[in-house]
Amino acid sequence: MGLDQASTKPHEELARHLSGRLEAVNTLIRERMASRHAPRIPEVTAHLVEAGGKRLRPMLTLATADLCGYDGDFDVNLAATVEFIHTATLLHDDVVDESEQRRGRPTANLLWDNKSSVLVGDYLFARAFQLMVETGSLRVLDILSNAAATIAEGEVLQLSAARDLKTDEDIYLQIVRGKTAALFSAATEVGGVISGSDEERITALYDYGDALGIAFQIADDLLDYQGDAKATGKNVGDDFRERKLTLPVIKAVADATVEERAFWKRTIEKGDQREGDLEEAMAILNRHEALERTRDDAMAWANRAKEAMGKLPEHDVRRMLIELADYVVARLT
Amino acid sequence: MGLDQASTKPHEELARHLSGRLEAVNTLIRERMASRHAPRIPEVTAHLVEAGGKRLRPMLTLATADLCGYDGDFDVNLAATVEFIHTATLLHDDVVDESEQRRGRPTANLLWDNKSSVLVGDYLFARAFQLMVETGSLRVLDILSNAAATIAEGEVLQLSAARDLKTDEDIYLQIVRGKTAALFSAATEVGGVISGSDEERITALYDYGDALGIAFQIADDLLDYQGDAKATGKNVGDDFRERKLTLPVIKAVADATVEERAFWKRTIEKGDQREGDLEEAMAILNRHEALERTRDDAMAWANRAKEAMGKLPEHDVRRMLIELADYVVARLT
Repeated sequence: MGLDQASTKPHEELARHLSGRLEAVNTLIRERMASRHAPRIPEVTAHLVEAGGKRLRPMLTLATADLCGYDGDFDVNLAATVEFIHTATLLHDDVVDESEQRRGRPTANLLWDNKSSVLVGDYLFARAFQLMVETGSLRVLDILSNAAATIAEGEVLQLSAARDLKTDEDIYLQIVRGKTAALFSAATEVGGVISGSDEERITALYDYGDALGIAFQIADDLLDYQGDAKATGKNVGDDFRERKLTLPVIKAVADATVEERAFWKRTIEKGDQREGDLEEAMAILNRHEALERTRDDAMAWANRAKEAMGKLPEHDVRRMLIELADYVVARLT
Repeated sequence: MGLDQASTKPHEELARHLSGRLEAVNTLIRERMASRHAPRIPEVTAHLVEAGGKRLRPMLTLATADLCGYDGDFDVNLAATVEFIHTATLLHDDVVDESEQRRGRPTANLLWDNKSSVLVGDYLFARAFQLMVETGSLRVLDILSNAAATIAEGEVLQLSAARDLKTDEDIYLQIVRGKTAALFSAATEVGGVISGSDEERITALYDYGDALGIAFQIADDLLDYQGDAKATGKNVGDDFRERKLTLPVIKAVADATVEERAFWKRTIEKGDQREGDLEEAMAILNRHEALERTRDDAMAWANRAKEAMGKLPEHDVRRMLIELADYVVARLT
């Protein structure tokens, strides 16, 4: 299945199935993003929230609530919560990244934008908490505040681990849970919780979101080395150039010869990169079958996601969510 | 009453009175600040949280809970929550400020620190929410998530309003509520809420915190123009040099002659500051009695705080909180 087979994309089928609820989420997002006192806020967020992203995370909440037979209104609140947390994280992630690309000499304008990104991100976090407080469910609040802590912890961990060759697969997994899977699993878990589902189903929904998020992130990291720039919008080797230690390189480092280790130390840890280094990195990755083994990991996580979803009752949405797990890794084959 | 009359400082008397609870708050802060996965987190926060700040905000929660006869343990949770939110805000405030002082050319190290500040601040926000979820009080969650939104909104508003001569006293008050008073009033209000106080007392506690916070911030802004650098740790005129429109200047702008308006436009809006401008600014402020009138406002807010506190029952802590309102503005006379 390729990215161009529009009619079969499971997230699009989900979006069609959930279109009424998604519309309500979009309305709520626009409403709560507004600020009477600080008109700059919607200016900053509009391009992120309105840009017609896939709304994957809020859809996970709507879909799991639907699957569990929920018929109240808080699925919309929680879907908007999840999207606000996601958008806030994106805003905070952007801080400094852009500046770094300009060789550590950001313009005053970039700095000003950094400050806006930080403060508007904080505003969205606060709005997210207000939205979930409205549900009146302490369990939901517990799940989402834990997710927020895991996200921040994962991001901080990434700061110190990203360029450190001692970073192993366990640490990578913690980082991936923080940057991606924690919000996926919270999004699916709260769908079950507000529906009053039994514990077994809630656990299965958590497991599905966790495994889907991990598969999604591993696929993303793999595509950085083997992707088609037109399809992914990323250039091959961006992570290498930015000295980010992701799963393919972690696998290659674990098996490295003395010479290879010196190569990774120079290019990733010290950041001394020269012409031809990306080609050399690709050759080492291929020598150790690091890309194939990374793809196997992504597939294994997608299978775990499907397995977990199999514990839910039969339902059109269950089929779509199972297909979504396939779709996340289908672009790798 | 001056800053040097150590034995009569009301916040020190409060700290002595609450020392057992404060100790518990400090222990909880250290415990929750730790991160098994990301040791960088306590590194970043330690200098802020450990530095032996006055712990004014957490003391407000402990004191109001005590005043209302609370005998549970959640006052400690909420005091730590309030301190975490305060510390997170400080971390996010610092982003870029320091860099700006280096003429828009921060070093790579400063940028790296910016990123840490953002992410560790996010971690503390998330931890703060976890701490308040533990209290199981939806009303407390509502109050503190609203405060968090007001804080962020005020900070964003300040970004656009600080250098705009159209900023009037109403907008200034909104900014001050955001940057200072919202957390003060949330801190005092939740002290009443967890104690199960009646609505009248809870309102009085909110009003006390709100007015105390506003008095505190106006005093701070005034001291920037008339303070003793040794006592305040700030240089006279920092806000002027950083082109921050605070209450003294807002009052002078409202009464400005055509020439004076041109002066403010050049120095604050355009940022074209020359030798002797601070002296000229002081002369204009004095001409319009802007500092005296700003001090009158601070006094009036301190009086409102005392009046609100007068609605609470007689209690040693009530006396200390009333003295605290006096103390906040005593340094201005």
